[in-house]
Formats: sequence, C-alpha cells, structure tokens
Amino acid sequence: MNIVIIGTGNVATHLGKALLESGHQISEVAGRNPQRTSELAQQLNAVAIHSFSNIATNAQVYILAVKDDALPSVAKQLPLVNGIISHTAGSLSLSILSKFINHGVIYPLQTLSRDKELNFNQVPLCIEGNNDGSEAILTELAKSISSIVSRVDSNQRLQLHLAAVFACNFVNHLYAISDKLLTDKQLNLKMLYPLIDETCTKIKCMSPYDAQTGPALRNDQTIISHHIEMLKNEPDLSHIYQTLTESIQNWHRTT
Amino acid sequence: MNIVIIGTGNVATHLGKALLESGHQISEVAGRNPQRTSELAQQLNAVAIHSFSNIATNAQVYILAVKDDALPSVAKQLPLVNGIISHTAGSLSLSILSKFINHGVIYPLQTLSRDKELNFNQVPLCIEGNNDGSEAILTELAKSISSIVSRVDSNQRLQLHLAAVFACNFVNHLYAISDKLLTDKQLNLKMLYPLIDETCTKIKCMSPYDAQTGPALRNDQTIISHHIEMLKNEPDLSHIYQTLTESIQNWHRTT
Repeated sequence: MNIVIIGTGNVATHLGKALLESGHQISEVAGRNPQRTSELAQQLNAVAIHSFSNIATNAQVYILAVKDDALPSVAKQLPLVNGIISHTAGSLSLSILSKFINHGVIYPLQTLSRDKELNFNQVPLCIEGNNDGSEAILTELAKSISSIVSRVDSNQRLQLHLAAVFACNFVNHLYAISDKLLTDKQLNLKMLYPLIDETCTKIKCMSPYDAQTGPALRNDQTIISHHIEMLKNEPDLSHIYQTLTESIQNWHRTT
Repeated sequence: MNIVIIGTGNVATHLGKALLESGHQISEVAGRNPQRTSELAQQLNAVAIHSFSNIATNAQVYILAVKDDALPSVAKQLPLVNGIISHTAGSLSLSILSKFINHGVIYPLQTLSRDKELNFNQVPLCIEGNNDGSEAILTELAKSISSIVSRVDSNQRLQLHLAAVFACNFVNHLYAISDKLLTDKQLNLKMLYPLIDETCTKIKCMSPYDAQTGPALRNDQTIISHHIEMLKNEPDLSHIYQTLTESIQNWHRTT
C-alpha cells in the first residue's frame, strides 16, 4: 500500500520500518522537527514534509503517530483525505478522527524505544475502524507486518493501555529502582536476571495473584521494617515500598 | 553429603529436591506442621522429625529454611552440632547463627513457589560462611546443584534482597493488578505477554532508566488524568498509579 507517516517518534519509526520491510511504500513522512523528519524520511525512502497541511491527499493509509496530546491539533491541520487516517494511541478513542470519512486505529501493544530493535511480527496490533471497509484495510495492513492482530474497540483499548502502564511502564520503573539500589552497593543488576525472567515466566503457568511471594505476603514485619529503615534516605523509594507492601497485604488479607 | 533440612516451605522443598536429584542424602526433614513435615520427608526419602530439638547431630550440613521471623526461635531449639548450620534468608545476617561453631548462608536469589517446577541449576545461590572451611563446603554443595554460585557478604545480601523485592515481589503485584484490570473488562492477560516479555528483555541491552516509556515519562497529563479517573473506584490502584507516576517524573525530571 501507499502510506503516509505523520510523526517521527518511537512508534512512527518502528511502524515505518516494519511497513517498508513488508514491501509497502512510504511516500511521505511529516513532522514538526525538521531534522528528525528528514532523518526518518531518508530511512524510509520517503519525502520529508515539514508542514502537516502539505501532505499528499492520494495515499491509501495515513498513520498518525504523534504524542497523544498533540494528536487533536495535528489532526485539525491535516487536509481532508479519502484514504484511511489511523492513529496509534492506546488511550484515545476512534472518534477523535471523525472529521475524516475513513478512519481507524492501529495500536501496537508494545514498548517501543527508538534504539532497541525488535521483531515487529510479534507485536500485538489492536485494530478498530469506523466502517467495515476501513477496518478491513487496516486489518490487512496490520497482518502484513504482525502475526498477532485483534479487533479491539475503543473501550477495551483504553483498559488494555491502562493495564499495560502497570505491567510495562511501572514494572520498568521498578527495575530502574532495583538497578539503582544495586549500583549504590557495587552490585550488578545482572545478578537479578534469573529472578526477573522467572517472575515474568511464572505468570504464564499460574495467575500472578497465586504467584505472589515475599515479605509483604508473609507479613514479615521484621524484614519490612528493616527494608524501610534501609530506604530512610530515599523518601521516594520508601513511599513506593510502603504503598506496594500495603496493597499486597490488602489483596491477600495477610494483616 | 548427608544433609538435614529444617523447614517445609517453598525454599525447603525446592532446595531439598535439587539436593536429592544431585545425589545427596537428605537424612531428616524437621518441621512444626506434622502433615507437611511427613509429606516432604517422604518426597525426599528422609525421616520426619517433629521436634526441632530431636534432629540428628551427625549430619554434615543443616539447612535452616523456615520463615525469617521464626528463625531465631528455631535456631535456639536446635542442639549444638558440629556440621554446618546454614540459613537461606536474604535479610538475616550470618551472625544470627553464631551459637554454632560452623555456620553460613545459602541464599537462593529466586522466587520459589511450591507448585511451580523450575530448573534449579539456573538459580543464583549466594554463599557466606563464618570460616574458610564452612564457606568451602557450602560452596561445594551449592555448585553441585546450581551453576550460578557467588560469595556474597551479609551487607550485600541484604541489598540484593531489597532490590529483589522491587524487581520480583512488587513487579509480580503489578502483573496481578494488570490481570484484574483486564479480567474486569473480559480481556485476557495473555494479550500483554509480548509486552511483559519485551519489558524484561529490553533491560538486558539498555539500562532500565533509558528503557522507560509511557505517559508518565512523556508527561502526558491528559492520559494520566484519564487513567486516574478510570481508577476512581479502586483507591488502592489509583494511589499506586499516582505514586509510581510521580516517581517516574521525579527521576526523569519531566515536570
């Protein structure tokens, strides 16, 4: 298909590369930041467009992958096109694009960092279209780059995104805290890799609720107090420790 | 070696099985709960001992794998033995066993659930002994069941345990929250498996700090407010959401 990509961030980059590798033509890349736009356009063999209102109007699919809070304003600047305009945001409804006759969503349920290669074929893509035609074309496009494609409506997508914030963004921050605690004592996060791997493997054969272990679950007050004492110079970490400990105890009613 | 296991929980069970499979003899299993003690003793071809003071005094190694806060009282009840008494706790110092001539620690840095099989050979074991002889024997024993054995002193072990609470126990609770949020809307945690896997793979090729993504990092206030609104009937989850979002923003100074 002939595709225009609007945006130059992580999602635009990964989606663009995957589409190009699957044989689609990226005719244009449009973005606000001139340097990034030119770079990504070059990577994708596309023409760089520096003003949103100047994009070609004859592409089949437009992928609008800009920051969520910039999306309404960027959508307003785009010309009315016949092709399908689709955004990529977990937490924005389909209707945000309702000024376009054909519109939809391709939401990649994955954490995408610009410099981290990944196998796009294994990225779940959640598709929604405003009519059968849009949905069929977006589904076809999605299946050409990923083997995990589902139809997900706006309400479900919102909940998926919220769940993903807990299971990915917040989890990653806990890894960052762990890393800092170890580095502070000349230890290396590598020592925790087997534990980190097992924690995420385990929940595939038992529910995470049943997989819970640790001092909070055992209500081991001596260890909990000791850990809080160890964090006394890190009020931020101490607050997270107490918040999550209390939540584990509430869920499992160990107190 | 001839080994006595004291305790019948997750650690006692997994360590006992691994030792038996590596050709060691578990002569006795001692525990407070009569049924569990008999069951584990039977599994390990060992004699069940129902009173801690009655354990044999001629074993080479004693593994004291009871709940951390029960450990001092159980240690008090044990007879003075010549073999090496080792505990398995991340957060208790070596000196808690100082009444015994030879003592040490074998701390498995892994999440162990009774019903979840795992390859013990890949469980990192952190070893400490009160003298060269104890340390050498515990290291030899550890190497017979795992290929990841390190010498870790009490201070480092404490910090490893604290870091593990963040990277495993708290991470698992976030998975449980995710699971609940999805189940509430007839969605399945399976949809997040690729995301969960990538989140834990990514930190092996970039630091978790650099791997951070999501609305908190982007300071996307519209999405953050919307998520908090979605959690308004779950004060516990809303509090966790806000605590972790603020922490990510403090760390990355996005606000």
